[in-house]
Amino acid sequence: MTTLSPDLLRRLHAWWRAANYLSVGQIYLRANPLLEEPLSLAHIKPRLLGHWGTTPGLNFVYVHLNRLIKDHDLNMINIIGPGHGGPGLVASTYLEGSYSETYPAISQDRDGMQALFRQFSWPYGIPSHVAPETPGSIHEGGELGYSLAHAYGAAFDNPDLIVACIVGDGEAETGALATSWHSNKFLNPARDGAVLPILHLNGYKIANPTVLARIDHVELAELFRGYGYEPYFVVGDEPMAMHELLATTLDTILARIRHIQAAARAPGAPQPPPRPAWPMIVLQTPKGWTGPKTVDGLPVEGTWRAHQVPISDFKAPEHIRQLENWLRRYAPQDLFDATGRLHADFASLAPTGQRRMGANPHANGGELLVPLKMPDFRDFAVTLAAPGSVKAEATRVMGSFLAEVMRRNLSSANFRLFGPDETASNRLGAVIDVSGKAWMADIEAVDDDLSADGRVMEVLSEHLCEGWLEGYLLTGRHGLFSCYEAFIHIIDSMFNQHAKWLKVCRQIPWRKPVASLNYLLTSHVWRQDHNGFSHQDPGFIDHVANKSPEVVRIYLAPDANCLLVVTDHCLKSRNYVNLIIAGKQPEWQWLDIDAAIRHCTAGAGVWDWASNDAGEPDVVMACAGDVPTLETLAAVTLLHDYVPDIRIRVVNVVDLMTLQPPAEHPHGLDDDAFDALFTRDKPVVFAFHGYPWLIHRLTYRRHNHANLHVRGYKEEGSTTTPFDMVVLNNMDRYQLALDAIRRIPRLRNRVDEATERYRQTIARHKAWVSEHGEDMPEVRDWQWSGPRL
Amino acid sequence: MTTLSPDLLRRLHAWWRAANYLSVGQIYLRANPLLEEPLSLAHIKPRLLGHWGTTPGLNFVYVHLNRLIKDHDLNMINIIGPGHGGPGLVASTYLEGSYSETYPAISQDRDGMQALFRQFSWPYGIPSHVAPETPGSIHEGGELGYSLAHAYGAAFDNPDLIVACIVGDGEAETGALATSWHSNKFLNPARDGAVLPILHLNGYKIANPTVLARIDHVELAELFRGYGYEPYFVVGDEPMAMHELLATTLDTILARIRHIQAAARAPGAPQPPPRPAWPMIVLQTPKGWTGPKTVDGLPVEGTWRAHQVPISDFKAPEHIRQLENWLRRYAPQDLFDATGRLHADFASLAPTGQRRMGANPHANGGELLVPLKMPDFRDFAVTLAAPGSVKAEATRVMGSFLAEVMRRNLSSANFRLFGPDETASNRLGAVIDVSGKAWMADIEAVDDDLSADGRVMEVLSEHLCEGWLEGYLLTGRHGLFSCYEAFIHIIDSMFNQHAKWLKVCRQIPWRKPVASLNYLLTSHVWRQDHNGFSHQDPGFIDHVANKSPEVVRIYLAPDANCLLVVTDHCLKSRNYVNLIIAGKQPEWQWLDIDAAIRHCTAGAGVWDWASNDAGEPDVVMACAGDVPTLETLAAVTLLHDYVPDIRIRVVNVVDLMTLQPPAEHPHGLDDDAFDALFTRDKPVVFAFHGYPWLIHRLTYRRHNHANLHVRGYKEEGSTTTPFDMVVLNNMDRYQLALDAIRRIPRLRNRVDEATERYRQTIARHKAWVSEHGEDMPEVRDWQWSGPRL
Repeated sequence: MTTLSPDLLRRLHAWWRAANYLSVGQIYLRANPLLEEPLSLAHIKPRLLGHWGTTPGLNFVYVHLNRLIKDHDLNMINIIGPGHGGPGLVASTYLEGSYSETYPAISQDRDGMQALFRQFSWPYGIPSHVAPETPGSIHEGGELGYSLAHAYGAAFDNPDLIVACIVGDGEAETGALATSWHSNKFLNPARDGAVLPILHLNGYKIANPTVLARIDHVELAELFRGYGYEPYFVVGDEPMAMHELLATTLDTILARIRHIQAAARAPGAPQPPPRPAWPMIVLQTPKGWTGPKTVDGLPVEGTWRAHQVPISDFKAPEHIRQLENWLRRYAPQDLFDATGRLHADFASLAPTGQRRMGANPHANGGELLVPLKMPDFRDFAVTLAAPGSVKAEATRVMGSFLAEVMRRNLSSANFRLFGPDETASNRLGAVIDVSGKAWMADIEAVDDDLSADGRVMEVLSEHLCEGWLEGYLLTGRHGLFSCYEAFIHIIDSMFNQHAKWLKVCRQIPWRKPVASLNYLLTSHVWRQDHNGFSHQDPGFIDHVANKSPEVVRIYLAPDANCLLVVTDHCLKSRNYVNLIIAGKQPEWQWLDIDAAIRHCTAGAGVWDWASNDAGEPDVVMACAGDVPTLETLAAVTLLHDYVPDIRIRVVNVVDLMTLQPPAEHPHGLDDDAFDALFTRDKPVVFAFHGYPWLIHRLTYRRHNHANLHVRGYKEEGSTTTPFDMVVLNNMDRYQLALDAIRRIPRLRNRVDEATERYRQTIARHKAWVSEHGEDMPEVRDWQWSGPRL
Repeated sequence: MTTLSPDLLRRLHAWWRAANYLSVGQIYLRANPLLEEPLSLAHIKPRLLGHWGTTPGLNFVYVHLNRLIKDHDLNMINIIGPGHGGPGLVASTYLEGSYSETYPAISQDRDGMQALFRQFSWPYGIPSHVAPETPGSIHEGGELGYSLAHAYGAAFDNPDLIVACIVGDGEAETGALATSWHSNKFLNPARDGAVLPILHLNGYKIANPTVLARIDHVELAELFRGYGYEPYFVVGDEPMAMHELLATTLDTILARIRHIQAAARAPGAPQPPPRPAWPMIVLQTPKGWTGPKTVDGLPVEGTWRAHQVPISDFKAPEHIRQLENWLRRYAPQDLFDATGRLHADFASLAPTGQRRMGANPHANGGELLVPLKMPDFRDFAVTLAAPGSVKAEATRVMGSFLAEVMRRNLSSANFRLFGPDETASNRLGAVIDVSGKAWMADIEAVDDDLSADGRVMEVLSEHLCEGWLEGYLLTGRHGLFSCYEAFIHIIDSMFNQHAKWLKVCRQIPWRKPVASLNYLLTSHVWRQDHNGFSHQDPGFIDHVANKSPEVVRIYLAPDANCLLVVTDHCLKSRNYVNLIIAGKQPEWQWLDIDAAIRHCTAGAGVWDWASNDAGEPDVVMACAGDVPTLETLAAVTLLHDYVPDIRIRVVNVVDLMTLQPPAEHPHGLDDDAFDALFTRDKPVVFAFHGYPWLIHRLTYRRHNHANLHVRGYKEEGSTTTPFDMVVLNNMDRYQLALDAIRRIPRLRNRVDEATERYRQTIARHKAWVSEHGEDMPEVRDWQWSGPRL
């Protein structure tokens, strides 16, 4: 008794041959797509780009997943991890028709096939990777290691969905992938969908064997059992036997998934549901399977030589013959009719409509996106009678708002909060009171707030937080990732790829907008005095600012109410990466909620209540970030004490990109608006949250740039006090005040005296800190007293 | 029959109590170190920083490793992964005497103990993490996840060394750590030392249980057997039984290590040696072991509440009593004599001299550093009769040089090359001909160049390449990491930590200089046209430029000979991070080796042979990077054709930091030297390898900044042709020429015509590329023809 009837086997094999034929065609051919004439040099692309090695395996899996989908009416998407797997997914979606529906010019006929071949890895065509351009994909195959985390992110809160995930054995060596296997401790079979990982033991990377292909199967099976899976091995190189083996295994595995889900979902099922051993597949096939066995006398199929283009240098006529023989072995004349269309006998293997993986809306998440039900953020505002009259912890206020967002959307099951073990530390704990922390591993009596149903995702891996969230967003849901500022650099490269993905998607009409990727960076550089130098790094701002201005947004909230306004805006936005930076410590509050709305809407503005310049300042004291704002306002009070008739304008910047010219960023203020804030000729002392040169980089074309003097973090730090952190980096209130005095022409005669006074103050500070281990009372007890009008 | 005699058990336990006492003292006490008077609020630090949870476990391991070292005269170092483990390592090195030898003010007496307590997490004192300040450490415990990769890096080529590595179960969730376990496939028992991983199942992170502590031991054992280890479980909470169990286990494991090494090293041992299952320990002890069981009625020992300071808020008098009771339970009066010195009976447990882990020179690698035996790089120079007369692949030339470096230092066994599966792709393959690629997993007949003795380290994990290299450098050896430019961002955060480590080390006299961390970034942004948008990112330059100028150096080699000069310099340098960027494609060569030496020594200079300005240029055409140099020189030939009497100065920048003012970076040119290159008032068109705004960020204080016009990568890209990449980003030769014409006042009347000509040229380019899939012949065949003098 076999799983596949002879007829079905014949048809599956034909489909696979067709997909392989189309893949080779994409890599090599610019013309003669159906081999209607003998292959000649003129038919071959001048520049061969693309990777054959991984492709036949991808095609093999695809046709078998199609059978499974069709037999069981499955809701399934397919995430393809291996790099340069583009030709495979393009071929398979073309065969099932979803590709031509997405791109009508690539029709299912001879001309369409020719266009399909030609566009691949061709300038102004399509990339060799699975990419945003590829229907059915939420995962760029370019940088390796994120497939499995994306797969789990897609499966969360999609109980009906099965996410197949082909993991390359090359990418399996990466750190991100190595820890992604543990995602199964966070997936609830009652609530979430299933992930079906398929480790493709292709055997080789670019130039080397892979680690997992060179440990024996006993060890490999132990590894995956240790990761909490039940591994099924599908190993071989004989296609007919492999068809049967994979089909049988997939049937077994689907039954196992259904059993796990049924047990967890049945009335009276144990709560919390026990963590199951989810099935996964180890698929071991030759690299470049069905390709040339040897080229120029050297083995190719099954070796690293099959990684990219197995045959090249077509000045050698025997290479042209060899390529033609390779293509003809797939017998295209038996697969496609005279018009170039796949025979109906084979085409009928594909599922229909949205069941096709190239047309499943989960892979174009914007189609499924439901806006969050948002509470009015004003209801969470800090009340203040006057600026600087109360203290609050900004992220705790934000946490109350996020808790209500969570509450209102519990039934929609489309919002999650992600963080590396820091949600409570970052003072967003109110969210945990609404929904616990997802946890499918063992729970003990001492544990607080762990729950199989939790929607707060905590794991000590920034890679998993980022990858899960990306997968969750790209399948049409919402979320926020809170992180210690310094350690967000761990996912710099993942951010890069997501920002690039979004940039490309914005140019693809059928890609519907998805919810923005929102970061809250807190426990930031200025308040990591206790954790030390390793925890002090504000450079993610610079990293984000390098990416496409269409995509990136950066917000530095000076206080809790501004943080509320920004958070509300970001959660409602689409297709951006929003970077929000705000502190968690109790700090003075500056703006009531109406003022905060006006200020954040403008993005940058004069704080009139802190200014007394009447349009003619001696100096502009500018700031961006909560600690810089605090130090700036303290400097203002010092200056008023020191120079009673001084005229100061205070400018605060929330939306950092307002500083750039509008030609550089859509949020950029025009020059008149910029000059209205910063003047054209007055000294500007700017206290900035991050590395100071970023402000120069954003403003170097502005009229008043030559008068701009920026203080910020300059890579000085240690285990010390909060105020000593700003002193170490010359961003303290005394320094800012001195900076102003030095730059105001009429105060030139007071510079020496002010400098000496500054030296004495800093010496007193150092002595106090050294003796007491904490900051001077005059710093700790400082309170805003307003300008002397 | 027990491993420990009753007397030894008593003494080991006493040492452990002493270490725990000193740890609690560091966290809490500012005075009364020996509890000679009843504890009062005045004795307690006002600000409590430090993490108790992990510390007793670290102390427990330390004293047992000491026993093992002493019994077997071992050469051992100890890498401590868990965050905030500082008090433990400080306490243990203080007890063994190495701390006081390093810091004489922290003497082994009452005053020294008071100073020891006071300095911990105190401003201007020492951090709460294991840090550069900590004797015996090569690993910052601040950011988590890199311990095990560092341990393997330390063990490579140190056959006599055993590297104990305590892995926190929190950090074990990170990606970097999850893949680091596979490092055992790259460690040769015949040639390398041993790594002894100790997974400390402490049970909790900041606020959550850890994943590995909440899967059962069967699954956990499978995971580690699957990773290729033989796990030994040491589990319990009863100290006396645990002493015996850990001691017995360590004896067993040491015997196992010795057996593995002896078998691999014996005459006639099988070659290559089979990959052994190395022993590792799972140490499961309560978090905050021996600390308070409960505080305020809530369980603490064995829970996440023990993570940081278990007792705080000393306004409550019962908390003071509880802290005093906790401290007195260790019975300090039985451990220390009246002067405050550890009783000799216990002190004698420590090894002596350099066998103490706090004094082992491998943990202060500069002490062991032997300079590389360097060939003369001139011997590898590309010969050229004139600039632009030959093509060469820069990294292939560098590869020949590195191969000779490898050859000359094979017997010293102190040089390795690291890369994520890209060494050959990056055209450094000559090195592989000298020494193969390290590989201890299975080797098959088809494999090329894999070898248990290889010194080229290839694994598809940038984290492992970086972590291994850092461990290798910090223990006194040399290396270079080559990487695709875009994907080096994967280790942004590791680079951050290493740069911070080096910055701090430079301020610590006893830390001897180590070899620099050298990166070669190739397969760079401008030549990833074939791999597509995901592979295009030059932002690591920006990332590096943010770190301390004492530490970072950035070199953009315009050709192969400059790359040789820079590589030679970097391999000889100490305590830096050197970032080298160079292409691998065949490109025109510009400087003979003598000119290259002069140019690189200056860091930036006028290329006289390409200039005809005679001191009065119409325009300065500046460039940094190989592709920008090519486009700039092509633009120069276009300009000479178009404006026969134009006067052009060509400036090339190799050492990017020459652009900064000398106050900002030690390599910065003084203003006169800068002005001599760039003039004070002429237009400058600058083609830059990276994001263009970085040049503005570096030069905004220069006199001529307002005339500086920079082109670079602005986040545009796709799968296209090489020349189309520069066109997409407006850094192509036609654009640069147009930029110049637009900025030269006397050519104002030619701007419209030049603009139209530019538009037509770009349209012709696009049409050609679209039709042919490759660049126009006039671009591909371009050759330098020199200025018309």
